[in-house]
Amino acid sequence: MQDTKLAPLEASFPCSRKVEIGDLQVPVREIALTDGSRLQVYDTTGPQGCDPRQGLPKRRAAWIAARAGDKTPTQMWYARQGIITEEMRFCAIRESVTPEFVRDEIARGRAILPANIHHPELEPVIIGRNFLTKINANIGNSVIRSSIEDEVEKLQWSIRWGADTVMDLSTGKDIHLTREWILRNSPVPIGTVPIYQCLEKVGGKAEDLTLDLFIETLIEQAEQGVDYFTIHAGVRLEHVPLTANRLTGIVSRGGAILARWCLAHHKENFLYTGFEQICEVMKKYDVAFSLGDGLRPGCIADANDAAQFAELRTLGELTEVAWKHDVQTMIEGPGHVPLHKIKENMDLQLELCHEAPFYTLGPLTTDIAPGYDHITSAIGAAMIGWYGTAMLCYVTPKEHLGLPDRQDVKDGVIAYKIAAHAADLGKGHAGAQDRDNALSKARFEFRWDDQFNLSLDPESARELHDESLPAPNAKTSHFCSMCGPHFCSMRITQDVRDEAARQEKEAGMAAMSAEFAKHGGEIYLAPSETKLGGTAQP
Amino acid sequence: MQDTKLAPLEASFPCSRKVEIGDLQVPVREIALTDGSRLQVYDTTGPQGCDPRQGLPKRRAAWIAARAGDKTPTQMWYARQGIITEEMRFCAIRESVTPEFVRDEIARGRAILPANIHHPELEPVIIGRNFLTKINANIGNSVIRSSIEDEVEKLQWSIRWGADTVMDLSTGKDIHLTREWILRNSPVPIGTVPIYQCLEKVGGKAEDLTLDLFIETLIEQAEQGVDYFTIHAGVRLEHVPLTANRLTGIVSRGGAILARWCLAHHKENFLYTGFEQICEVMKKYDVAFSLGDGLRPGCIADANDAAQFAELRTLGELTEVAWKHDVQTMIEGPGHVPLHKIKENMDLQLELCHEAPFYTLGPLTTDIAPGYDHITSAIGAAMIGWYGTAMLCYVTPKEHLGLPDRQDVKDGVIAYKIAAHAADLGKGHAGAQDRDNALSKARFEFRWDDQFNLSLDPESARELHDESLPAPNAKTSHFCSMCGPHFCSMRITQDVRDEAARQEKEAGMAAMSAEFAKHGGEIYLAPSETKLGGTAQP
Repeated sequence: MQDTKLAPLEASFPCSRKVEIGDLQVPVREIALTDGSRLQVYDTTGPQGCDPRQGLPKRRAAWIAARAGDKTPTQMWYARQGIITEEMRFCAIRESVTPEFVRDEIARGRAILPANIHHPELEPVIIGRNFLTKINANIGNSVIRSSIEDEVEKLQWSIRWGADTVMDLSTGKDIHLTREWILRNSPVPIGTVPIYQCLEKVGGKAEDLTLDLFIETLIEQAEQGVDYFTIHAGVRLEHVPLTANRLTGIVSRGGAILARWCLAHHKENFLYTGFEQICEVMKKYDVAFSLGDGLRPGCIADANDAAQFAELRTLGELTEVAWKHDVQTMIEGPGHVPLHKIKENMDLQLELCHEAPFYTLGPLTTDIAPGYDHITSAIGAAMIGWYGTAMLCYVTPKEHLGLPDRQDVKDGVIAYKIAAHAADLGKGHAGAQDRDNALSKARFEFRWDDQFNLSLDPESARELHDESLPAPNAKTSHFCSMCGPHFCSMRITQDVRDEAARQEKEAGMAAMSAEFAKHGGEIYLAPSETKLGGTAQP
Repeated sequence: MQDTKLAPLEASFPCSRKVEIGDLQVPVREIALTDGSRLQVYDTTGPQGCDPRQGLPKRRAAWIAARAGDKTPTQMWYARQGIITEEMRFCAIRESVTPEFVRDEIARGRAILPANIHHPELEPVIIGRNFLTKINANIGNSVIRSSIEDEVEKLQWSIRWGADTVMDLSTGKDIHLTREWILRNSPVPIGTVPIYQCLEKVGGKAEDLTLDLFIETLIEQAEQGVDYFTIHAGVRLEHVPLTANRLTGIVSRGGAILARWCLAHHKENFLYTGFEQICEVMKKYDVAFSLGDGLRPGCIADANDAAQFAELRTLGELTEVAWKHDVQTMIEGPGHVPLHKIKENMDLQLELCHEAPFYTLGPLTTDIAPGYDHITSAIGAAMIGWYGTAMLCYVTPKEHLGLPDRQDVKDGVIAYKIAAHAADLGKGHAGAQDRDNALSKARFEFRWDDQFNLSLDPESARELHDESLPAPNAKTSHFCSMCGPHFCSMRITQDVRDEAARQEKEAGMAAMSAEFAKHGGEIYLAPSETKLGGTAQP
C-alpha cells in the first residue's frame, strides 16, 4: 500500500476477506462468523494496495480489445443484438441473476451498465430497478479548497463504505488531471457534469458557451474514460419562465447555467437542439446519459411544480432519441419533495421516460434541518427507492453548508446504504434479507463480534458498544449495558424457550408414563404404537 | 441557573426568545430574522433557570384544585361530559385549533392528553393523529451506570431539542427518587414502565410478581405524578408459543418478563386478568395507558407475524375496557419492520384499536446498521407517522449497543424531529410548511444567520458551515463553499430573474413605444385605453 492515508480494508472490516468468483473474478466480501458460517456481501472496494500513480489493473482491457472495430460499442447495442458481453455476465454474477436477464433489461432500456470503453479498470455495475438499488457519492474539488490527492482518497473512501458510482464534480483548477487520477484508480463507474468544465473554458460567462465547445469537452472527457455524463438538455427556453415564481428558483448549477444561456440569447438550449450530435459522441465511447434535472425543486414549496414536470416530459422525449442511437440513458430526479408527493415523481418518471432508470438526489423530505440532510434525504431516498428508483445520489450532512470532508462522505454513504438496503428489503429483492437475518441471529445469540462484523460499519458499532462496556469479556457476555444482566429480554426469552421446552418434555414424560401404565408396564412398544401416543415432539 | 451543566437556551437557539400566549401563558419560541420578520415555533423546553431541587413552577395547580372532588378526573371523562378543561384550551392554542376540536378528539379516544393530577408542572400536550406528530425520548439509569443528576440533565437536554414526552426507564437503584426529581423538573408528560420497578421489588424473579404488588407500584408512581404507564397486558399466555419459532423471540423487556411469568405459572397474564382493577388506579389520577407491545418484532424476519398481531388484537379489546372507565389510552407499536410491511401495521392498528393513538418505536427498516439505528428507524418513523402514527418513540445511535450519552440523545431527538416534521408535511398539517418556507427563503437570499437560526440545530448548522468558510463576512456573502462564486446556482438564478425582468421591461417599453406611435405620439391616454394596450405587467 503506497501513497494512501487510508487504513487497510481489514481495519474497517475485521474477519472479512475479498473473494473472487468464477472466470470473470467477480469480487465479493466474505465475512467469517464465529459459528463457522460465512456470509458473502456485494463489494465495491476494488483492488487494494495499488500505487495510485500506476492505477488499478485493467481487467476489461482484453474484453474491450476483442470488440475493437464495432461501430456502436454500447452495452445497449450489444444487448439489442442479443449479445451477452463479459460486462453483462459480470453483473449477472454480482446480482445473482441470469446473464440473459441482464441483457434483456439493458436492451429494453430498463437498466444501464455504464462502461466507457476507455475505462478498463472498471468492475461493471448494473443500474435498474430490478437489480439491487445503487448509490452514488459525489466528490470534487472547488475553487475554495481540496487537492488531487484528496480527491483520489475521497474516491477510495467512498467505495470503501459502499458507493456504487462516484461523480467527479470538480470545478476548480487541474480539473483534467484530477479526473485522470480518479478514473485510473476507480473500479466504479465515474460520472461528470461536463458543462462545469465548459464554463471554466469560457471564463465563467455562460452566454459564451457553444455546442462546439461542449462537444469538444465531451470528447476530452470521454477519451479519459468517464462512464456517464449529466447533461441538462431538458432545460428548454420555454421552461425558464415557469420558475419565475418559485421560492428558490433554479438550484441546479447546470440548470442555472443553461437557463442563463437561453435567456441571454433568447434561443432554445443548445444541448436540446444539438442532442443528436451529442448522441454521436456518447455512442462512440459507450458513455451513458444521465439526463440532468436542471429544474429540480430546491425546497418543499417548489416540489412537483410545472417547471419540474415540463422538464421531465422533455427528458422522456430525449430518452427515445438516445435509445434510437443505442445510447444507454438514465434520468435524474429531485431534490426536495415532501412524503406525499414522492410517489407521483416515480409514477410520472416511469410513464414519461418509458421505464429508463431513475436516479434521484434524495429527495429531502423537509428543509428545516441543515446539518442533518443525510437524514432528511435518506427518508425520501428509501421511499423512492422502494417505489422503483434505481440509483440514489447521496447527500451529506454538509449539504447546503459546505464541502464534505472525510467524515461527511462516510456519513452520507452509510445513510444511503441504509436507504438503498431498506428499499431492497421493501421490494422483496431476493437474498437482500440474508444479511439482516444473519446479524439478528448473531444479536440474539450474543455473538457480539459477529454482530459488529456483519454491520455496515463494524468499527463504529464496536466503538459505540465499548463506550459502555469496554472489557473484552463483555463481548462474550449474555447481556449488554442497556438493561443489565437481570433485565435482559433476550436472555429472558432464551429462558422462556428453555422453560417451554422443559414443560413440553415433562408433559411428554407424563404422557409416556400414562402410556406405560396403560400397556401394563411393558417397557418396549412397537414403533407404530409410540406414534399414536403423545411424545415430546409437537 | 443553578446545578445544571447545560448552557443557556440562547446558546442553542440564537436570536430566539420564549414568548407566552394568552391567559394560559402557552409557550412558543419566537425566532427573529434579519429581514425584520419573526417565526413562532412549537416549544417544549419549559421554564428556564429553575433550581432542580425546587422544581418547576406548578402552573396547573389552580386548574387541578378547582376540579378537586371529581371522582373521575380524567381528561377523557371531562371531554365526554362536554367540558373543555384548561389543559384542552392550552393544547388548542399550541396546535392552532379550536378547543372544541381538542375536546372532541379526546372524547372519541382519537387523542390523549396525558396529565396526571399530581403533575402540576406539566405544560399540556395532545397526542393524536390529527395534531402535530409528537416524539418521545427515553432516559433512565441502569445497574451499569448513570446518576440522578445525569438523568435530570438528560431530561432537560431531550426537551431542549424537542422531545414532547420523556419516558423514565430506570431500572437501577434510587428508582423512586430519580423519578421524583424528573417529575418535579419536567414540563412534558413523563411515562414509565412500572413492571421494571416491580421486578426490582421481587429481586428480579419474574415468577414472584403479583397483581397486588403491581397495583401498589402503580399507586406509588401515580402519586408522584407519572402521566402514562406502559403496561404489557396484551401478552397473553396463548400468545407466548407463537414466538417460539421467531428469529429473535421476545425482545421487549416487559414482554419477556410477563411471558416468563405466564409460563412459570401456566396462567393467564395477571395484567390481563386484573385489567379492570388497574383501570381503577389509572382513572383516579388520570394516568393514561400506553398499552405495551410486549411481542413486537425484534428483527425484520419477525415483522407482522402471528404473535405481534394476536397481541394487537388483545390491545384493541383492552382499549374498549379502558374507555369504559374513561381512561385515556394509546397503543404501542413496533419495532423492526421493512418498508412494505409498515402500512399494514397502521391500518390494522386503526381498525383493531378503534383509532386510539398509535405510538411506535421507529420502526427500524433494516437490521444491518447498528450504530446508525437513529437513521434506519427515522425512515420507518417518518413513513408510519405520515400514515397516521401519533407519537414516535426515538431510537438513538446506541440502540442495540449501549446506553445513550448526551450526544446520542441529541442525535436521536433531532432524527425524530425530522421524521415527525416530514410526517406533518406529508399529512398536509396546517402551518407545518411555514418553517420550511422561511428557511428556504433565507437560503435563497443568502441570509446565512437566518438559515441557521431557523434550523432544528442552529449550533451544528453554523459549525458545519464555518468548517469551510470561517470568516465572518462569509455569512453575508452571496455564495458558499460548495460551488464558489462563479458557479453559485442561486446567484445565477437571481441573475436569470433580473434578466427576465429586464427583457420583459424592454418588451413592455417596446410595446409602449408602439402604443405611443399608434396613437399619433400623444403623451397621455385615457385609463381604459392603456388597459387594452400591452404593458410590462403580464
